[in-house]
Amino acid sequence: MKFNNLPIGIFDSGLGGLTVFKEIRKILPFEDLIYFGDTARVPYGNKSKETIIKYSSEILGFLTDKKIKIAIVACNTSSSLALDYLRKISPVPIFGVIEPGAQKAVEVSMNNISGRKIIAIIGTSATVKSGAYSKTIKEKAMLLYGVKKAEIVSISNIDFNGFNENLKIIEKSCPLFVPLVEEGFLNEEITKNVIKYYLASLIKEKPACLVLGCTHYPILKDFIEKEIGDNTEIIDSGVETARSVKNYLEKSEMLKSGTELGSETYFVSDDSERFKELGGKFLGRPIDNVYIVNFS
Amino acid sequence: MKFNNLPIGIFDSGLGGLTVFKEIRKILPFEDLIYFGDTARVPYGNKSKETIIKYSSEILGFLTDKKIKIAIVACNTSSSLALDYLRKISPVPIFGVIEPGAQKAVEVSMNNISGRKIIAIIGTSATVKSGAYSKTIKEKAMLLYGVKKAEIVSISNIDFNGFNENLKIIEKSCPLFVPLVEEGFLNEEITKNVIKYYLASLIKEKPACLVLGCTHYPILKDFIEKEIGDNTEIIDSGVETARSVKNYLEKSEMLKSGTELGSETYFVSDDSERFKELGGKFLGRPIDNVYIVNFS
Repeated sequence: MKFNNLPIGIFDSGLGGLTVFKEIRKILPFEDLIYFGDTARVPYGNKSKETIIKYSSEILGFLTDKKIKIAIVACNTSSSLALDYLRKISPVPIFGVIEPGAQKAVEVSMNNISGRKIIAIIGTSATVKSGAYSKTIKEKAMLLYGVKKAEIVSISNIDFNGFNENLKIIEKSCPLFVPLVEEGFLNEEITKNVIKYYLASLIKEKPACLVLGCTHYPILKDFIEKEIGDNTEIIDSGVETARSVKNYLEKSEMLKSGTELGSETYFVSDDSERFKELGGKFLGRPIDNVYIVNFS
Repeated sequence: MKFNNLPIGIFDSGLGGLTVFKEIRKILPFEDLIYFGDTARVPYGNKSKETIIKYSSEILGFLTDKKIKIAIVACNTSSSLALDYLRKISPVPIFGVIEPGAQKAVEVSMNNISGRKIIAIIGTSATVKSGAYSKTIKEKAMLLYGVKKAEIVSISNIDFNGFNENLKIIEKSCPLFVPLVEEGFLNEEITKNVIKYYLASLIKEKPACLVLGCTHYPILKDFIEKEIGDNTEIIDSGVETARSVKNYLEKSEMLKSGTELGSETYFVSDDSERFKELGGKFLGRPIDNVYIVNFS
């Protein structure tokens, strides 16, 4: 068996990707991890595709200069809009968070015993507008479950019908969730009201699963779970991404050798104090080794 | 009498400065106006002083290259953190939104017949953390109203005592107001609850006035007014800035000649569609002449 002792590079527009980082650390304790948060230009969710590709490419270049073995785009917006481009220019294998989340959503909805083949996805405006989850889910459903015909009705409400299978995909943007999380949820009543407001139209559809299509959303998982009820499985794209990265490293014989706990290094483009403070809450433990990088 | 027919340059981190732009247009209908919104890097409110200075300097350079007669920093965060630096490098007179708002607050509180010499200020985290309003108010109170001794207790709760005058200044950050406005307020209940939550501690103090220390906040003015009651005067820094700019142009004989309505040109660093859509709501009329500028 072979090994690869180079670190794994993980990046996000800011802090959110730390929920993915946390899941990777949980199941790959020996890997060295490098995290990059683009805190000078956060958030990406309301920016154009061109700008997101430009920023993401700069970060990928920074990480690959540090000699990493794989890169993980721990940002749904960047995964939605920039991953195709990044795949073309990346010298190392690169993973996004959309595909693992979409894969799990297809499995859950297709195997749902109640027959409700309905998938709900929540994310930032840019992620939803890109339709990346819908497109990926559609492709996977066609490939893996024999859906033969597909029709896209609208970007935020996509229905498609296959030969033996019907699948409905609903995407909904929840732009206030990120500031709510970054504000420490404010208070319980406000958080509940905002969640209720955004999810009302989704709950009516009784989806088999709800994909948390933004790395900030796992922080609100308990609240969302209460609101949406027991019959909808919540899918955390970060958890699924960590699983698929582990799987890839094992199959490609690229795991780090030894059983020494891996190192963790963080780079940000602005203000490491805020990153340390709020990021510590995301990870559930203090953050050290934070360095500021100036891009221009 | 002399005239100056060059345009006025106005800039902000994004859309918010359009509330200042609107006030300037209202009282200076004949001036040509150039607006710059840094939509690729918005918001500034959670970024460091160094980064805000860097971004603001780039924009000032862009505007002065276009040959303007004066520049207005229509952004409280940038006015708080970058204006001192910008004044040093600017080839044209430059105005921020803090000083006019602070001036009005001092007048209102010092002349308050009930004797409540308490000023409340709300803004982004960066504006409040900078203490720019408190410092400016303190200086003006000392200079104009004979306050002789001043003591700063804390950045977010500053008391100072003068010879015959007591003045209390309270600053409070309301980071959810900007996303609320950009989301079109969501619904009335959520907006009311968030405003209630943030203002609770301020209302207890029964301030003589409340300064809207962020250019997005005038959009929420009606809601804020209802919550805070009739005995607190609301001060819109944008309105005060427009007045002081008009005053300056008149005194310096720099008004534009003639009575032809002025032109309006907008530059943004990203995605002019969103700017047009939401910006139109801010201005209360459609926005044309939007150009995208790429900074690097």
